Amino acid sequence: MGWTNSKGAELKERAARVIPGGMYGHESTALLPADFPQFFSRAEGTRLWDADDNSYIDFMCAYGPNLLGYRHPDVEAAAYAQMERGDTMTGPSEAMVTLAETIVSMIDHADWAMFCKNGTDATSMAAVIARAHTGRSKILVGHGVYHGAAPWWTPGPSGILPDDRANIVYFRDQDSQSLADVAKAHQGDIAAVFTTPFRHETFRDQSDPSAEFARAARQLCDREDAVLVLDEVRTGFRLSRGSAWEVLGVKPDLTAFGKVVANGYPISALVGAETLKEAARGIYVTGSFWFSAVPMAAAIKTLNLIKSTDYLECLTLAGRLFRDGLGKQAQQYGFSLRQTGPVQMPQILFEDDPEMRLGYFWTSSAIRRGVYLHPYHNMFMNAAMTPADVSEALVATEEAFALLRKQDLAHLPLERPALVSRLQRAQSLLTVS
Amino acid sequence: MGWTNSKGAELKERAARVIPGGMYGHESTALLPADFPQFFSRAEGTRLWDADDNSYIDFMCAYGPNLLGYRHPDVEAAAYAQMERGDTMTGPSEAMVTLAETIVSMIDHADWAMFCKNGTDATSMAAVIARAHTGRSKILVGHGVYHGAAPWWTPGPSGILPDDRANIVYFRDQDSQSLADVAKAHQGDIAAVFTTPFRHETFRDQSDPSAEFARAARQLCDREDAVLVLDEVRTGFRLSRGSAWEVLGVKPDLTAFGKVVANGYPISALVGAETLKEAARGIYVTGSFWFSAVPMAAAIKTLNLIKSTDYLECLTLAGRLFRDGLGKQAQQYGFSLRQTGPVQMPQILFEDDPEMRLGYFWTSSAIRRGVYLHPYHNMFMNAAMTPADVSEALVATEEAFALLRKQDLAHLPLERPALVSRLQRAQSLLTVS
Repeated sequence: MGWTNSKGAELKERAARVIPGGMYGHESTALLPADFPQFFSRAEGTRLWDADDNSYIDFMCAYGPNLLGYRHPDVEAAAYAQMERGDTMTGPSEAMVTLAETIVSMIDHADWAMFCKNGTDATSMAAVIARAHTGRSKILVGHGVYHGAAPWWTPGPSGILPDDRANIVYFRDQDSQSLADVAKAHQGDIAAVFTTPFRHETFRDQSDPSAEFARAARQLCDREDAVLVLDEVRTGFRLSRGSAWEVLGVKPDLTAFGKVVANGYPISALVGAETLKEAARGIYVTGSFWFSAVPMAAAIKTLNLIKSTDYLECLTLAGRLFRDGLGKQAQQYGFSLRQTGPVQMPQILFEDDPEMRLGYFWTSSAIRRGVYLHPYHNMFMNAAMTPADVSEALVATEEAFALLRKQDLAHLPLERPALVSRLQRAQSLLTVS
Repeated sequence: MGWTNSKGAELKERAARVIPGGMYGHESTALLPADFPQFFSRAEGTRLWDADDNSYIDFMCAYGPNLLGYRHPDVEAAAYAQMERGDTMTGPSEAMVTLAETIVSMIDHADWAMFCKNGTDATSMAAVIARAHTGRSKILVGHGVYHGAAPWWTPGPSGILPDDRANIVYFRDQDSQSLADVAKAHQGDIAAVFTTPFRHETFRDQSDPSAEFARAARQLCDREDAVLVLDEVRTGFRLSRGSAWEVLGVKPDLTAFGKVVANGYPISALVGAETLKEAARGIYVTGSFWFSAVPMAAAIKTLNLIKSTDYLECLTLAGRLFRDGLGKQAQQYGFSLRQTGPVQMPQILFEDDPEMRLGYFWTSSAIRRGVYLHPYHNMFMNAAMTPADVSEALVATEEAFALLRKQDLAHLPLERPALVSRLQRAQSLLTVS
């Protein structure tokens, strides 16, 4: 095989000198098998090239933003056209108004929109608006659920003070009884309930969207006069062309979008109901690049493609074919895979693999065969992935299963010992109420 | 005059329906004279065009990001070249490493760099790193100083809880005695002291950089083993080609950059000393677009232009010429102007104008004559502004002074009554210790 990583290794060394840890955040490969490339040189459609020019069929989609295919020609054209006129100016362009009108028209509960840069900006704005609207303090969130990297949510405890989280209260994720119990304990001081459309945490099986939980959360917020916030930063426009809860018939009060609003251009959004518009008007939030025109032009085009094309059917089909193919391969080679959640956002864990030795060996083998899979983070399908791409990926995954089968499974190496404590912590969240 | 605003007025109406307040954040014109355009269609060099195609010589520079001129050809070329390869991918590109190496080589105290999207991301990371490093809680900040829009800093109190600010302690801005007094009261629990290189708050006169204060803050942090954080989000690379404090011989431990790292492309940065690298490695911060390659490619080019061109002399000359010209005009027409702070970042307030009636009339007249000035926020010079541009702007400002002179000054309209309480609040910060 032509797979090499000398240039990537060199870059990692240079990076370690001038970047803490050599890299940080969700795209760090520090806990991934050593073969995983950290730096990329190119992206097109459903493919990625790393710094050594190895190419990959990419099942991560930049951890979400790539919805329609990297460098989608129509989105690029809209961005280029706006770049010719201006991007970051002394105020927004008309694109901001058109974008707000467009996203409001697509999300059933939305009457207004605000734009920002990070998903975390949107979830933080939601918390502040809920507190401004209700005059209350407490935010109820699922235990272990990721709502962003600000001090009150971030999963990393380093540098975080108890005061930062003094008003965050935890219920068992996606569990309406636990939510009711916790709400009872804080009755009269609940500003908001935060939830994601389904469970999609690292290291864990995903859940499917639950109409029962969505309805229970809605009823509880109605009864308590609290704000229901749906965090769609990760799920946005991959489950439906509108709100992920539209099919369940449940409307949140606020929804945070992030990764996919502009197919990779940097913009996130908070949309909300008319009842919260006055509170939203009264908070002070901003950012130097929040009003830049290019990501807004790209977002308008992306949303229009979401409305007018079969992107959703394409990526769902690819997700279905991939899941079915993997399921058959796993059976054939005698492995038990847990493939959970919607097919558009695959999560693939091996049964009986408490330290992820199987998963690490298998994804590492796939990487060396040109398929970028993640051993413990949910993946993302994109609309540029054809059935032929899936078939090509399945050739590599089958080779990876075959190679794994040949190993002494009881003595697979533990490539990242640091991972074990992270896995134990994730496991502990399942049992905390 | 050909100045019209019908299209801008129409856009404001559309915006009010789908955006809270019609606009939010630092680029909102809600408190500015009604003539100020909210939406822009184009930017090039030192000029802006609004939605009605009125053109302006722009003294706001997108509130900072425009350092070299809008759409600087070399920066655009670097961005376009990267766009052809990929932007938001499943990891960063080599540009991230090169950018970290470049900025570290330019800032005297920097050994490492982290990149993010908002200035607020960088200041928040600084606070978390300082707490992780020291194991302490308190952050000392100048009263009324803007360090970002997160709940613990944001000037808008709506939706903010006392717990959000429980560990922020205030001293009188740029006052070393006040800093010493406050530090004494919190001895042993000081994680960090935050400051800007000079005072540049809205509604107030600016200060000049103070070697005395910088040295006192450095000594205090050394004595208390606390982290000294310089917030250069607004000042970055407008006072020098490196740290704004380099000329004072004082090194902070961390510096936050935001607006100008990539001449308008969305990226901010935190740079720090080796002693803090381990703490920086240990915190969990991230964002969906923090590792995107295009803003990094643009930033590398911008920093190289900062190192290799006379951009700083150009924008300083333009600032000097503008300040001198305005001073003469004010005297000629019998007004007393307060022009404060470094000429590269002009702040222009009228003497004896407690409700800003003079300033509003004058800047409003300048707007109608094609010059975008701000009545209460510091402005920014850029390197594309030539002496000829300054002369052209001064023709408009002279007409504005002449027109103001003809008014019944005792009965100028109070165009924005909501402004008065904001002015009073700003004034009160001057007297709080």
